[in-house]
Amino acid sequence: MEANGSSNTAGKPIQCKAAIVRIPGEPLVIEDVIVAPPKRCEVRIKIICTALCHTDLTFWKVKDPPAIFPIILGHEAVGIVESVGEGVHEVVEGDIVIPIFLADCGDCTDCLSEKSNLCTKFPSRPSPWMKREETSRFTDINGETLYHFLNVSSFSEYTVVDIAHLTKIDPAIPPNRACLLSCGVSTGVGAAWKTAKVEAGTTVAIFGLGVIGLAVAEGARLCGAKRIIGIDVNQDKFEIGKKFGVTDFVNSGNCGDKTVSQVIIEMTGGGADYCFECVGMKSIVHEAYASCRKGWGKVVVLGVDQPGAMLTFSSFEVLHSGKSIMGSFFGGLKPKSDIRILEKRYMDKELTLDEFVTHEVDFKDINKAFDLMLEGKSLRCVIWMNK
Amino acid sequence: MEANGSSNTAGKPIQCKAAIVRIPGEPLVIEDVIVAPPKRCEVRIKIICTALCHTDLTFWKVKDPPAIFPIILGHEAVGIVESVGEGVHEVVEGDIVIPIFLADCGDCTDCLSEKSNLCTKFPSRPSPWMKREETSRFTDINGETLYHFLNVSSFSEYTVVDIAHLTKIDPAIPPNRACLLSCGVSTGVGAAWKTAKVEAGTTVAIFGLGVIGLAVAEGARLCGAKRIIGIDVNQDKFEIGKKFGVTDFVNSGNCGDKTVSQVIIEMTGGGADYCFECVGMKSIVHEAYASCRKGWGKVVVLGVDQPGAMLTFSSFEVLHSGKSIMGSFFGGLKPKSDIRILEKRYMDKELTLDEFVTHEVDFKDINKAFDLMLEGKSLRCVIWMNK
Ligand SMILES: [Zn+2]
Ligand SMILES: [Zn+2]
Ligand SMILES: [Zn+2]
Ligand SMILES: [Zn+2]
Repeated sequence: MEANGSSNTAGKPIQCKAAIVRIPGEPLVIEDVIVAPPKRCEVRIKIICTALCHTDLTFWKVKDPPAIFPIILGHEAVGIVESVGEGVHEVVEGDIVIPIFLADCGDCTDCLSEKSNLCTKFPSRPSPWMKREETSRFTDINGETLYHFLNVSSFSEYTVVDIAHLTKIDPAIPPNRACLLSCGVSTGVGAAWKTAKVEAGTTVAIFGLGVIGLAVAEGARLCGAKRIIGIDVNQDKFEIGKKFGVTDFVNSGNCGDKTVSQVIIEMTGGGADYCFECVGMKSIVHEAYASCRKGWGKVVVLGVDQPGAMLTFSSFEVLHSGKSIMGSFFGGLKPKSDIRILEKRYMDKELTLDEFVTHEVDFKDINKAFDLMLEGKSLRCVIWMNK
Repeated sequence: MEANGSSNTAGKPIQCKAAIVRIPGEPLVIEDVIVAPPKRCEVRIKIICTALCHTDLTFWKVKDPPAIFPIILGHEAVGIVESVGEGVHEVVEGDIVIPIFLADCGDCTDCLSEKSNLCTKFPSRPSPWMKREETSRFTDINGETLYHFLNVSSFSEYTVVDIAHLTKIDPAIPPNRACLLSCGVSTGVGAAWKTAKVEAGTTVAIFGLGVIGLAVAEGARLCGAKRIIGIDVNQDKFEIGKKFGVTDFVNSGNCGDKTVSQVIIEMTGGGADYCFECVGMKSIVHEAYASCRKGWGKVVVLGVDQPGAMLTFSSFEVLHSGKSIMGSFFGGLKPKSDIRILEKRYMDKELTLDEFVTHEVDFKDINKAFDLMLEGKSLRCVIWMNK
């Protein structure tokens, strides 16, 4: 081991295995790929494990732009720094890091502000390239370019990530827990904690108990919410939800002649203090708005409908209800600072992460992770690169 | 003067002058009316002065329900308690009070909460009656019922108001200033102070510099906003606005080939921290939304379009912009407690009220107040009952 931490592979291309999507919706194929060394402000990391998120599934299936092929998907992950490019001082070889699809340049007005997580220097938009010079670090063994995904591409033994998208974490946190902080769980927890700023003793209603909704429950529980009402069409979600703090359940397929909002208003004597829409349907945004307590209720939108979908509110109601409407992107979390807080809360046994991991598979079985999600059997399936 | 404060007129009907609208849009006629004594939880007050607000104008012109005639309009006022009904302990004869269209019962969940000003016991809805027993205290000299307006009906020498709609104030505040706290000015100041919670050093954009918009500027100035941008089609509003803290002006009729939001975004390097819509047009709500800083911008809706108007937002934008949307009703102010704070800030020479009063007329000339407002010549015209 060298004192200054230069790895044997630093500065050289690495040949390794990656799971590639060449045809949308077809099983991923594990192939040999060449991962170029990191350029300026980039870091090459060896993925320890990665998890499958719905966004991977969406882009795996979608045929039209911004989808592009062949691509290396994956964006919930944890890895170890193999080598760093010029100008990278924040991490060194051997550091444990998690990649995050959202940038934190540390430098622009937004990144310097406590109030925003929407980096101005590197706005969030789908791109198949490394962001600073719009090229790829991946080629297949025939020299063909492979595209990046969401600034991460973790379905590869090695990947290159911009330093703006990496957060160094405590090596003590187990990798199959750390990777969850990379996207979905953080998004939900942050929505309760940072976006809505749930106050202790309040009532929360969560529409849709997938991973995001369950993570909202977990965040609300951490904030001291007294009552956490889960709403889902699947009754089984109540038992699952209890592990994350859900105290009450409404089966939205079984409200008789009442709407869900009527049921929530009756249960709570006027509406929930906070309502989270985690399904991504505009009709549910409206039920969430209607379910909110007049005077101070907050509606937080976490999902998004089809492109171009519009949310419509009565102007009379906006004016007279005292309710507010807000969106939550990556839970309002700042990738570099807030993730470390969540990590600490996990290590302090406050934040539940373990229960999100329902399955674990070896990298060679990555398609099983897709099957489990498609069948609705998994919350998170962790994929180990080299167990 | 009697020790327990019973006036000579207490318990008896009072005959006095009131300005009556019998036919919508026709000049008000000053007639003799009979004002019955206050019933349980009611207070009869002698109006000292009253001001004309746009809502009076709206209901004066509207022919269809909820408009109803003959009616005694007026709801911005200050008066002196003449007598109180059974069960009233909060005020006594001789107290100076301002009536407020919005209830504060002091007793329901909302009135007991710091976070809401939407009384559950007495919800805000147009009613031509006294609220507890749905009858009128006004008759004309032929015995015909005259209707109440917005729980106040201040265009009368005497009126009866429910105790939930009265706030006792410091008798030292001049009546032609005190009456302004009854509605429009408080609404604007409160929208900046209580609804948006404008932070010091921030940038505010105000769409529409009528009384409400100017009062928002005043509220933002009190909160320490660094830059207050007024937007109006009337260039003269800039000079007027300066008196209330407006630092910059955008003539929305003169933006060349740019939209107002493009101009605001350029001026502010990304958008205003807070945008207030004070015109009541949904197209302006959308400009306000677009003019807001991503990451943390707040859009506050103060006006309301035609009944049934809908506000539409792209669900993608709601999710990805970090902006929030909220309405402000009576500026989010709690009638009993917050008005006293504004009153104190006026007495401490912090809050500007004087500049809102552009005209003063005697009660007999009340139609002149209507003309001035119709011609756009007045901000507030104060009507003195007995000068
Ligand atoms: Zn940045
Ligand atoms: Zn994700
Ligand atoms: Zn109340
Ligand atoms: Zn008014």
